[in-house]
Amino acid sequence: MHILVTNDDGVYAPGLFALAQALMKVGKVTIVAPDRNWSASGHVKTMHRPLRVKSVTLHKQVAALATDGAPSDCVALALLGLVPEKIDLVVSGINTNANIGHDVTYSGTVTAAMEAAIWNLPGIAVSLETPENHHGEMEYGPAARAAAHIVEQVAAHGLPEGVLLNVNVPHLPESEIKGILITRQGLRVYRDELVRREDPHGKPYYWIGGDAPTGVRENGTDFGALSAGYISITPLHLDLTAYQAQNELKKWDWQLPFRVRSDVEIT
Amino acid sequence: MHILVTNDDGVYAPGLFALAQALMKVGKVTIVAPDRNWSASGHVKTMHRPLRVKSVTLHKQVAALATDGAPSDCVALALLGLVPEKIDLVVSGINTNANIGHDVTYSGTVTAAMEAAIWNLPGIAVSLETPENHHGEMEYGPAARAAAHIVEQVAAHGLPEGVLLNVNVPHLPESEIKGILITRQGLRVYRDELVRREDPHGKPYYWIGGDAPTGVRENGTDFGALSAGYISITPLHLDLTAYQAQNELKKWDWQLPFRVRSDVEIT
Repeated sequence: MHILVTNDDGVYAPGLFALAQALMKVGKVTIVAPDRNWSASGHVKTMHRPLRVKSVTLHKQVAALATDGAPSDCVALALLGLVPEKIDLVVSGINTNANIGHDVTYSGTVTAAMEAAIWNLPGIAVSLETPENHHGEMEYGPAARAAAHIVEQVAAHGLPEGVLLNVNVPHLPESEIKGILITRQGLRVYRDELVRREDPHGKPYYWIGGDAPTGVRENGTDFGALSAGYISITPLHLDLTAYQAQNELKKWDWQLPFRVRSDVEIT
Repeated sequence: MHILVTNDDGVYAPGLFALAQALMKVGKVTIVAPDRNWSASGHVKTMHRPLRVKSVTLHKQVAALATDGAPSDCVALALLGLVPEKIDLVVSGINTNANIGHDVTYSGTVTAAMEAAIWNLPGIAVSLETPENHHGEMEYGPAARAAAHIVEQVAAHGLPEGVLLNVNVPHLPESEIKGILITRQGLRVYRDELVRREDPHGKPYYWIGGDAPTGVRENGTDFGALSAGYISITPLHLDLTAYQAQNELKKWDWQLPFRVRSDVEIT
């Protein structure tokens, strides 16, 4: 099994190294990752400028390719031929901070796995919750070993077409992780605030600041599972159609103001 | 009704000006848009650097705020207080190029409307198809007038919570637009190719090139409607859970390799 590893915290992030090391036990690993942090960068396809690629070595041990593209660009570059050998599976992470609820469309980690799904490859995003007020080093080992186990399961069963997995791991010692739950996407509660400052020349600039986001702690959701000490696996897909809203919308007045012909039917 | 207008082609794009002019007939319009093109930039929240805002005037007539943030940043800035008066509705566009199928997670136009949905405001993304091999000026009038009609409908009925509208308009004269169809998200077919070049110093760089994407022409979809000469309105939501995949996943082996306790149940 040939696994492509990427992330959004940058190629030198410890979470990527821990993930790659754990995955080397279950398959061949190729790393193509951004040369800098792309957190909350969304699903990017860089077409307005060329991308550079350089070879780097992580901790004097592991070869990797670093690009100046976004995480999803790294996946696209690899699959478009930058990596010549066939890739079977894409794993992105380990992100520092959970990616739950509405985070999934912002998250570079998750959108890298989306890019895999668009290519009809299994994609898995792995994120590690940072506990509030945690400032010490993060322990990526449990999340990395859990990711390796999940990859083995995906390799054994395959994922339904167009489905990617969004994995979130609580920051706990292995003995305290209660298990794995299959969840649905929950609700994030953002607490952003606009912070206005003035530069030394008297001109304003604005930070999107405020407290870190929290979430609605509900059973069955990603946030609920994490909060209860479980690893959360949410299957995601890229059909965002709000099917329940379609019938309601069909009842509205859709006669275009500039259309007077009567042979047009709204179906 | 107070309408916030943004886009991803940049504040000076003709599509934004046409949209703002048409919407001024149905409500008060405030423009907060990026100072440059952010196409295929994804859903961004810029927190690692401050954002600048400057006042500009479009065509010597219309006041606007330009920021160095992404489209979704523009919406967040406005709703966080940069625009003091209450905003009722967010409209993004008119994008040059359709945003259909998998485009929706890449698209700056659509992700600006997603940002509105996260804030529990109605969000509408409006894109104008560029016909293949079209190189002349685009005609934004029909799309702008259709957008104004759609905004009036949304104002009259309200959108279900968490739902945004992804509107795509064919590039046709008004007399040839067949009507409006409520659709589901279709399938894009990307035709990207990796183009490797060498700089004057012999070092390689890579373009994501290839042909413009096409799509699967299927009844009931965004691409199908556009191809048949209809305006497509797809209701989207931000719950990406692949509910159909949950039961299958629950059957897999989720005993963590580092857990030997037998009191853990997978539910």
